[in-house]
Amino acid sequence: MTRLRVTFLGPLGSFSHQAAAESFCKGSADLQPQVSFPDAFAALQKKEADYAVIPCENSTNGSVVQTLDLLADRDGLYKDVKVCGEYYLTVHHCLMVRKGTYPGGWAGYDGSITKLYTHPQAWGQCETFLTKYFKGVERQDVTSTSKAAEIVSKETTERGAAIASRFAAEQHGTDVLVENIEDRADNTTRFLIFRNVLDERTAQLNLEQPSPPTSEDEATLEATHKTLITFTVDHSSPGALANALLIFKAHGLNLTSISTRPSLKKPWQYIFIVECGRTPSDENKGAVDKALNDLRQVSETCRDLGTWKNQLSASNA
Amino acid sequence: MTRLRVTFLGPLGSFSHQAAAESFCKGSADLQPQVSFPDAFAALQKKEADYAVIPCENSTNGSVVQTLDLLADRDGLYKDVKVCGEYYLTVHHCLMVRKGTYPGGWAGYDGSITKLYTHPQAWGQCETFLTKYFKGVERQDVTSTSKAAEIVSKETTERGAAIASRFAAEQHGTDVLVENIEDRADNTTRFLIFRNVLDERTAQLNLEQPSPPTSEDEATLEATHKTLITFTVDHSSPGALANALLIFKAHGLNLTSISTRPSLKKPWQYIFIVECGRTPSDENKGAVDKALNDLRQVSETCRDLGTWKNQLSASNA
Repeated sequence: MTRLRVTFLGPLGSFSHQAAAESFCKGSADLQPQVSFPDAFAALQKKEADYAVIPCENSTNGSVVQTLDLLADRDGLYKDVKVCGEYYLTVHHCLMVRKGTYPGGWAGYDGSITKLYTHPQAWGQCETFLTKYFKGVERQDVTSTSKAAEIVSKETTERGAAIASRFAAEQHGTDVLVENIEDRADNTTRFLIFRNVLDERTAQLNLEQPSPPTSEDEATLEATHKTLITFTVDHSSPGALANALLIFKAHGLNLTSISTRPSLKKPWQYIFIVECGRTPSDENKGAVDKALNDLRQVSETCRDLGTWKNQLSASNA
Repeated sequence: MTRLRVTFLGPLGSFSHQAAAESFCKGSADLQPQVSFPDAFAALQKKEADYAVIPCENSTNGSVVQTLDLLADRDGLYKDVKVCGEYYLTVHHCLMVRKGTYPGGWAGYDGSITKLYTHPQAWGQCETFLTKYFKGVERQDVTSTSKAAEIVSKETTERGAAIASRFAAEQHGTDVLVENIEDRADNTTRFLIFRNVLDERTAQLNLEQPSPPTSEDEATLEATHKTLITFTVDHSSPGALANALLIFKAHGLNLTSISTRPSLKKPWQYIFIVECGRTPSDENKGAVDKALNDLRQVSETCRDLGTWKNQLSASNA
């Protein structure tokens, strides 16, 4: 079998790149950056990629709306794309500089950095550290933390530093001065791993996390399966949404999250994106199929977006 | 009684300003712009304002996340602020220029506009018009459509045009060259109207739309009441969310929307923001209070965010 092709939102060194690299065994996959989420989904639909690793939710900021819109798939562009796994990435930020700028490291730092680079969201995530050590220092917004690392890696005229991940530092060959400068130690992004269900190359990997977490994580994992389903209901019919949600409970599927996006067919009508979980047992065998059958009776449209193994462990919960 | 003080997100001429002006009878209220949504909520909590008019949802883009975070009120900053009404504003864009620039109007336009100004979101909403008449013309992003109108109103050196509302044109005294240049005629923003429940000045207006819609709209309004409730559940307890949602149905409250935001207490735990409706009747009298009582039994936290009259009519649905 040829090497797996795994696609993600670039640039190289992005958190998506890191999640893709950590989800698949090093060296076993070709990692292919894309310029947008729709491009990653399109590559999968056209079977130009085997997997896509896409952020869907951050523990601090909530849902990634662009990803919800891809799941809603209003125009039916990605009808063969389904979720087959998930990956939790804890967001750690580092302060980094061009290689060799401070041979003594942070201990010997003389206060000479004059400019900081990072993505706008990262400033707020490192406020305590920045207030303590870099009060008043000029801040330059850039399009990604990885881009910030790239800029300082090529810096020659001024003393610049970037806030980015250790992964980005390795990609761009910068020196990390300080690690874990973020305010919240538990800021985590959940990525969904997608495949094309018609792709026979990856069929045998279905429901399996391509690269399993470490054994200590595994011990604390709840052996649950998660399922993603989207549906629309007739909004003029009172109780339609409640009736649809009742079906999950009736089949032993535990509702864990509900998101909504505008249908764009008519204002104030929504596509519901529901995630549910179950611990597989003899009683709930086939529960997802039965729930989908019932849902089709009470919904206007309804779609199964895949089932995969829970990877949320005590260490990232 | 002194004049009502109505607060909204500025600048003057913004869609929020328009919604505030149209929600309250002209001349009966002092309209007070704020620089952020939290500032508007804080003014209400401190009784420095009587009402706040805040966008909560757009028919094309979905929920306004900052508003959901205010409703979630994780730190209990706005405990006396509740919804008392809503207002639907259809978003129309105009092309406008400095007063007197084109005395012949659009009919006599000679193609001499060299630069366009608007908020980034508005470009995408007017793509058909812009592609037809302004292909290749320089575009300058600004922080609001109202700001764009202000810039061109003071333009002296170049031929600039702004994309903004007729309301903004009136605020800044620009000439409207073309009206309704938006792609979608049905792009509508829903505003919620908030008050401080301890404010006796506004108590008698509770549940009433301060300025009723026109009579033809009124005829087509469904006589429903809407209620907003937030709650959190114990995520380790299977079925907790379904059980909470069941309570609405049990009391005859029709679930119409469900939003989620991170609790920020622990990753992957959410605050649910649920909207439900009912046509008042003898059977469902007190339904909201009964549902809240039951919800308190199955939820960790639970809060009533107010009940108000539905203003969604056939003309804006």
